[in-house]
Amino acid sequence: MKEMITSSKNAQLKNISALIKAKKERDASGLFVIEGLRIVKDAIKYAPDYINTIYMSEAFDSSLLETDITKYNYETVKASVFDDISGTVSSQGILAIVKKPEYTLDEILKAAKEEKNPAGPGDGKKYLLLEDIQDPGNLGTMVRTAEAAGINAIIMSAATADIFNPKVIRSTMGSCFRVPFVYAEDFPAAVEELKKSGVRVYAAYLHGGNNYKNVSFNADAAVMIGNEGNGLSDAAVLAADERVFIPMCGQIESLNAAVAGAILMYAI
Amino acid sequence: MKEMITSSKNAQLKNISALIKAKKERDASGLFVIEGLRIVKDAIKYAPDYINTIYMSEAFDSSLLETDITKYNYETVKASVFDDISGTVSSQGILAIVKKPEYTLDEILKAAKEEKNPAGPGDGKKYLLLEDIQDPGNLGTMVRTAEAAGINAIIMSAATADIFNPKVIRSTMGSCFRVPFVYAEDFPAAVEELKKSGVRVYAAYLHGGNNYKNVSFNADAAVMIGNEGNGLSDAAVLAADERVFIPMCGQIESLNAAVAGAILMYAI
Repeated sequence: MKEMITSSKNAQLKNISALIKAKKERDASGLFVIEGLRIVKDAIKYAPDYINTIYMSEAFDSSLLETDITKYNYETVKASVFDDISGTVSSQGILAIVKKPEYTLDEILKAAKEEKNPAGPGDGKKYLLLEDIQDPGNLGTMVRTAEAAGINAIIMSAATADIFNPKVIRSTMGSCFRVPFVYAEDFPAAVEELKKSGVRVYAAYLHGGNNYKNVSFNADAAVMIGNEGNGLSDAAVLAADERVFIPMCGQIESLNAAVAGAILMYAI
Repeated sequence: MKEMITSSKNAQLKNISALIKAKKERDASGLFVIEGLRIVKDAIKYAPDYINTIYMSEAFDSSLLETDITKYNYETVKASVFDDISGTVSSQGILAIVKKPEYTLDEILKAAKEEKNPAGPGDGKKYLLLEDIQDPGNLGTMVRTAEAAGINAIIMSAATADIFNPKVIRSTMGSCFRVPFVYAEDFPAAVEELKKSGVRVYAAYLHGGNNYKNVSFNADAAVMIGNEGNGLSDAAVLAADERVFIPMCGQIESLNAAVAGAILMYAI
């Protein structure tokens, strides 16, 4: 029988803490941490080959995973030590180190060029384009909403929050394993490439354009959402085909980015 | 000239901390705390009579408030002491104690019964009904979205998060001063009362009902959203006129509550 990890000074546990805290560590290793029963089950179901190591508190009932745990690398950790390393306030006694799912811009663009679904409008390919979204909760919620709305892939600017940040991962509710995404070094250039595949790009814009309720969206369509405070950059707006706005009553200056994204993703 | 508050043991500052931390204190006093330049300006603009006392760090430039500060009770606080009491991570050096805007269910129902706008569908009265929403960010975002979507009033179950929680207030972006709301002790009974005013109530439901995209919403309409984890109670669903769902692709079990609320508020 394997020995339990009983010290928070254990090198593996230190590695977990580093991966939770620092994007630099996640970038260097290509690994990230998922915490909680639900998302670990999602990883087992949708990305089993990506699981590096599963860590369980000694108090955790491994039958809850509904899998043969011995198929994976796993470690058992003393309960008090596990709670110390867990990044969530109410630890569920289960976490895993997982290899980042990574997609290239070429893969995503190639998929956009592939034979289109012959069905009518509404059945085309759909994309979410995010420029410099900063709030982890907003980003995670948009990834989750993107899956629900049938978005094929997400393209993000390099300055968008790290999707592998534990707060983002938690808000995605597992969608991070099911929706392809990529960080584009040159965001406007990536948008231009997407357009060459016949995808029409709609920029969410506060200062003009067309009311989204009156737009007949193209079957192949992308929604572009900008930073929470500053909106989209001029370069991003210029790269889009069309500006659309969500009408607002009252004294509201803007909608929450995840809300605006949701309304437009469901509109296209 | 008034003396500056220099000690964190000052009774007024202790009161601020108590109002930030404890719903009990807010309930007992009928007061709450708003923090940051933007929302204090909103209070000055939309609810000047509700302002009890404005507190400024000595480092704060009061001209930013764009008002004659001497019209209000105000205090200046030593910078380091101000930062200690402020509930936000990056204090802007300005906060205020404000009287809670409070509405009764009768006022809200009476407004619903008043002469309807003679214009066609889409110009009727709109309501948001929330049962047991727990996340402060979700609640605040829904209040903000409600104003943008032209919602006339919000009715919440008694177990919904406290709208005067600083995290909720921050997420509302000032809408808390502009959209009437009430906590109903008996939520299903309040829904029944609203229906008597000719308002049709649509419950967001995961397990059946009509796709919201195919529903011709009544001009006078209410959207009902349930708890993040458990959805709506049976009693609430039974009190509604109709169940509607938002179609979801992929493996998503549900949308974020604020996202579902936004999509349906914009649909009605």
